[in-house]
Amino acid sequence: MNPPRTDARRHHDPEVRGFASDNYAGAHPEVLAALALANGGHQVAYGEDAYTENLQRIVRSHFGATAEAFPVFNGTGANVVALQAVTDRWGAVICAESAHINVDEGGAPERMGGLKLLTVPTPDGKLTPELIDRQAYGWEDEHRAMPQVVSITQSTELGTLYTPDEIRAICEHAHAHGMTVHLDGSRIANAAASLDVPMRTFTNAVGVDILSLGGTKNGALFGEAVVVLNRDAVRRMKHVRKMSMQLASKMRFVSVQLEALLAKDLWLRNARHANEMAQRLADGVRAVHGVEILYPVQANGVFAKLPHDVSERLQKRFRFYFWDEAEGVVRWMCAFDTTEDDVDAFVAALKEEMARQPSGSSA
Amino acid sequence: MNPPRTDARRHHDPEVRGFASDNYAGAHPEVLAALALANGGHQVAYGEDAYTENLQRIVRSHFGATAEAFPVFNGTGANVVALQAVTDRWGAVICAESAHINVDEGGAPERMGGLKLLTVPTPDGKLTPELIDRQAYGWEDEHRAMPQVVSITQSTELGTLYTPDEIRAICEHAHAHGMTVHLDGSRIANAAASLDVPMRTFTNAVGVDILSLGGTKNGALFGEAVVVLNRDAVRRMKHVRKMSMQLASKMRFVSVQLEALLAKDLWLRNARHANEMAQRLADGVRAVHGVEILYPVQANGVFAKLPHDVSERLQKRFRFYFWDEAEGVVRWMCAFDTTEDDVDAFVAALKEEMARQPSGSSA
Amino acid sequence: MNPPRTDARRHHDPEVRGFASDNYAGAHPEVLAALALANGGHQVAYGEDAYTENLQRIVRSHFGATAEAFPVFNGTGANVVALQAVTDRWGAVICAESAHINVDEGGAPERMGGLKLLTVPTPDGKLTPELIDRQAYGWEDEHRAMPQVVSITQSTELGTLYTPDEIRAICEHAHAHGMTVHLDGSRIANAAASLDVPMRTFTNAVGVDILSLGGTKNGALFGEAVVVLNRDAVRRMKHVRKMSMQLASKMRFVSVQLEALLAKDLWLRNARHANEMAQRLADGVRAVHGVEILYPVQANGVFAKLPHDVSERLQKRFRFYFWDEAEGVVRWMCAFDTTEDDVDAFVAALKEEMARQPSGSSA
Amino acid sequence: MNPPRTDARRHHDPEVRGFASDNYAGAHPEVLAALALANGGHQVAYGEDAYTENLQRIVRSHFGATAEAFPVFNGTGANVVALQAVTDRWGAVICAESAHINVDEGGAPERMGGLKLLTVPTPDGKLTPELIDRQAYGWEDEHRAMPQVVSITQSTELGTLYTPDEIRAICEHAHAHGMTVHLDGSRIANAAASLDVPMRTFTNAVGVDILSLGGTKNGALFGEAVVVLNRDAVRRMKHVRKMSMQLASKMRFVSVQLEALLAKDLWLRNARHANEMAQRLADGVRAVHGVEILYPVQANGVFAKLPHDVSERLQKRFRFYFWDEAEGVVRWMCAFDTTEDDVDAFVAALKEEMARQPSGSSA
Repeated sequence: MNPPRTDARRHHDPEVRGFASDNYAGAHPEVLAALALANGGHQVAYGEDAYTENLQRIVRSHFGATAEAFPVFNGTGANVVALQAVTDRWGAVICAESAHINVDEGGAPERMGGLKLLTVPTPDGKLTPELIDRQAYGWEDEHRAMPQVVSITQSTELGTLYTPDEIRAICEHAHAHGMTVHLDGSRIANAAASLDVPMRTFTNAVGVDILSLGGTKNGALFGEAVVVLNRDAVRRMKHVRKMSMQLASKMRFVSVQLEALLAKDLWLRNARHANEMAQRLADGVRAVHGVEILYPVQANGVFAKLPHDVSERLQKRFRFYFWDEAEGVVRWMCAFDTTEDDVDAFVAALKEEMARQPSGSSA
Repeated sequence: MNPPRTDARRHHDPEVRGFASDNYAGAHPEVLAALALANGGHQVAYGEDAYTENLQRIVRSHFGATAEAFPVFNGTGANVVALQAVTDRWGAVICAESAHINVDEGGAPERMGGLKLLTVPTPDGKLTPELIDRQAYGWEDEHRAMPQVVSITQSTELGTLYTPDEIRAICEHAHAHGMTVHLDGSRIANAAASLDVPMRTFTNAVGVDILSLGGTKNGALFGEAVVVLNRDAVRRMKHVRKMSMQLASKMRFVSVQLEALLAKDLWLRNARHANEMAQRLADGVRAVHGVEILYPVQANGVFAKLPHDVSERLQKRFRFYFWDEAEGVVRWMCAFDTTEDDVDAFVAALKEEMARQPSGSSA
Repeated sequence: MNPPRTDARRHHDPEVRGFASDNYAGAHPEVLAALALANGGHQVAYGEDAYTENLQRIVRSHFGATAEAFPVFNGTGANVVALQAVTDRWGAVICAESAHINVDEGGAPERMGGLKLLTVPTPDGKLTPELIDRQAYGWEDEHRAMPQVVSITQSTELGTLYTPDEIRAICEHAHAHGMTVHLDGSRIANAAASLDVPMRTFTNAVGVDILSLGGTKNGALFGEAVVVLNRDAVRRMKHVRKMSMQLASKMRFVSVQLEALLAKDLWLRNARHANEMAQRLADGVRAVHGVEILYPVQANGVFAKLPHDVSERLQKRFRFYFWDEAEGVVRWMCAFDTTEDDVDAFVAALKEEMARQPSGSSA
Repeated sequence: MNPPRTDARRHHDPEVRGFASDNYAGAHPEVLAALALANGGHQVAYGEDAYTENLQRIVRSHFGATAEAFPVFNGTGANVVALQAVTDRWGAVICAESAHINVDEGGAPERMGGLKLLTVPTPDGKLTPELIDRQAYGWEDEHRAMPQVVSITQSTELGTLYTPDEIRAICEHAHAHGMTVHLDGSRIANAAASLDVPMRTFTNAVGVDILSLGGTKNGALFGEAVVVLNRDAVRRMKHVRKMSMQLASKMRFVSVQLEALLAKDLWLRNARHANEMAQRLADGVRAVHGVEILYPVQANGVFAKLPHDVSERLQKRFRFYFWDEAEGVVRWMCAFDTTEDDVDAFVAALKEEMARQPSGSSA
């Protein structure tokens, strides 16, 4: 059968993959297939379509009867919509200094949401009740932006994980202070796969109020959802989403992608595979003398410290980023489509480049 | 051949269409096919991919050598990004009272961009130099939000069109006052098809500085682009897009949809067809006694005034919206997938419902 | 007795007055005297001082037991603080097109408060339930900024007045739709003086929820207060004031000025006098052939239409502003310190300049 | 001579002073006297008055021929106006973690200006080029809020001082990276007095671009000025001030206060006295066993660590604040009106309370 006609052309080699980001991967073929199912005919725009309605059923199967999903375009949008929804004009967000909302969203929370971020340095990207307390005070003090929500990331930007009990402790602590808890779940699937528990186990089961549920890094073309777990914590989500420029007109195409991922186990298969590739990568790297792995490898990312020259030579063969160039730290991410051969080739290349390094040089 | 596997299911009847909105339509099959081409392998995220690079070539073929496209998610995003890019913190936007940015974006320009809209009532959704002058003054007066950009819509929210000369006159007037011109081209394809000229004829050829180029209503799943025509008018577009939550990580999937539409003539085929269906609809309606068409039918929308009871009965058979319920005005939109049969069935239904109306009743 | 030492010098002629604005006047001597009383020693900053505490008592004597005053610096600040306090992030403000918040605050409501203004043209600066209804709809429609507050001005920007019954009707209408009512009382004293009723008669007695209480135009150096009349309508006023940059550190000096005005009848004496001067001015002007008074003269402003040449010549003798230069409309404002001689000299000058005008010329 | 009539009453004891804040002091009598000079007659509102014009001359005498002053109401306003004036929509501000703009302005920079603050922990409230470099990177990276301005405070929130050379090094470093430098001079007079140099020596002479010039803590009732030192760094200051709700209508009363302070040496007399009192206080405290002074006492503040019980007992006798209650750190501020007797009485009280402390207890 001939492929369907289109004037577009292929401009890339679909066999080339790297370790730069799980956003470099494309979409899972099952997600693409879902788009075709949802196509054709007319469906009410802006979220009153059958796919978005059905998505509610699916999301409730994951997160319980009170969960409600609000599909949005991207992770920045999900986070800024969710955080606005649980803060007043005078509210502030306690988060780790390394949180994506603090370092990688171009100031969107401050500029679009008027949100003040109260940041805390952490050893591993994870908050604790004690760390939260460094910013959790002064609710009656008008000179201080009022801490109203704690935002955590699972899995974190450093590839580490909170246990369900750790999140429960954070939620109890936050709630005791009248704050809500937001979980940036851009890579929530990787967390669930690694912990080998349902997503609800470390979200609404332990007190998370609102969630940014990632689709893009999990195999969608684009698409995330703000999932409200505690309806008492929010009002007028639809208005917040719209005014934040995150309302898709043909929402069926966001919702059906999330359906393809979440209806059965595609979300888990994708995440589990990416995690396994990261473990394989970490195992390979650990065998290379002179390369140090920095954090526990608990999800789909590996952070390593190695000689700067080696990184630069390696980057000519595989695309990846420095995390902290001054410190010689790099980040290697695995995706749902990373293969064992990709990993093995990368580890072999790393070995080669380390071997070319003059003896005595180190990270 | 079996369809590709997916856990998603079809939840709608792909044979049902209405006249509520061109956003109710799905994606053109050629656009879907393009997504498959762009899939597979790794591509640099956030816009450094081969598809976005190629899109620049295509956009330049439409708008000339200085044009540069910045793909975004949706129309609200395109407009708010574009308007921020051509205003200072103290800037204001002159637009028609009926402009989408004023009435249909939930206050996003004000809330996300801090933009003041200086609105002007118009008879037909179209600004003129004279109408602009009702708000174009006081640049040195700090008590007044400073008019820095004129925003027009082509085709307008009322289904009407500017001629290229009318836009030229607006641009010359705006530029003479030191203002830039933004064109909300959510339905720019319909305008070009109706005017039977290239898009550049009524944009950069006549002085438009920046453009919201619509993809969604033209047959994409989602996706628009801010097209900068006058590079001197903007700075740091990428920063503005990112902080506005409109930066797609897997941007290849936005760009390849725009490629499918714009590489050859799909954009024009789709728009021309929708326009023709609107003409067919208008012709049919004009033959129905007691229904009044309100504006020139120049693009893909028909606005009509008819008895309220008739509208309500008709809405039970075909989905569409009241435009001004108090006045009995409705809006009927045609899309790229509207068929002649759809139109004829709708006109027949309209006739039936009008016939059921007691004599003497009128719009 | 020698005046107290200061290195500052007098740079102006304290005997020269005009009709440009009630902001051109200085402070009433009794207000200056009050500053000296409040000076000396230490008082808690940021509003916990004895003067601000005492002001509460005074404000309650005017507005009833539930009233609470939040002193701020200026009128723009009062309005933007008050409007933020009664709106959610998604809220919008219904106001007259001629409202100060719409035309004269540099876009502060939009930029600082993220507020969308839904404006209505009015014949005389006054809203009515019917006029409000032109914008009061669509609360459930996320595409629309949600109307949450009606803002009226008393006396209006056109020198006109609402009767208490008119405001009651607006409040009942707004409340029936779940909206609150804000009254911009930059010139509330002039309104009370003209209506010859206590301020409460047309505010909390008829349902106004929150008030910008003007001090500056009434004889203060600077200083206004947001007065909350309905405590259920607001939360965290102090936080809103602080984050809006309107919290005075040495607040005693704002509060004592308001005390000087409001403790007994200085506010009323000042306003009554300014109103009387406006009546005297209007009476004088009515006797000048060829000059038309445009609105009912109900407070301290007179709007007139006269030949442009005459206005320009007159402006060389007395400072005042064009209100609508194209239409030949000017605004003449009287202040607490305008004298009968000032008015008579101005009317005489007007007569002279009209007399110099070639016959047949008119407004 | 009888005092001028006023209905206001004195509500406080003008002989009671404490060490809580230099904002607890009132106004210097010479400043009050200046208000009377500026009163009477009409002056153009909103800054076109003779006092504001004269202030320009005075400010140029301090800061050189290119300096221009924009009077505002308060310190938060000065900072947020100044920072907006030197940043684009996508700009960010590098500042010390302890900066007033970060910890004490209720999120005003983020909420009103949409500004992202990039903070750096410091040992003593002072930035250095090396500390700035922890945030000064990524100008081309759209995912990062773009560092456009470095904001320093002189004297700092911890009572410490930059030398002119230290500020020069910061300015050279910032300028080399295309950033401007803002100086929060809420207590600039105390810095100049302590360094015994003109204010220009550590501002425009060493490259500072824009300045928040404090008046309130220096003896004004209220009033600060944004002083633009490098005109190329800013545009449309008047628009930024107005839209930020910081434009005083009767501006003569702000300007004449600054004139009273700055025309000759009142600013310096006031600051020098406050600094001397802080030195006297520090000297006294150093003689008290068990109380530790934490930072160099270089301006008008003393930070000390002492037993919590002692602080609480002492607070019942003199008002002051904990700076870090958990650590037992308190802040004692001296003002222009602090007397030697005040200091001596306070030190004596401190000694008494320490003596009441059980032996063995310590800070």
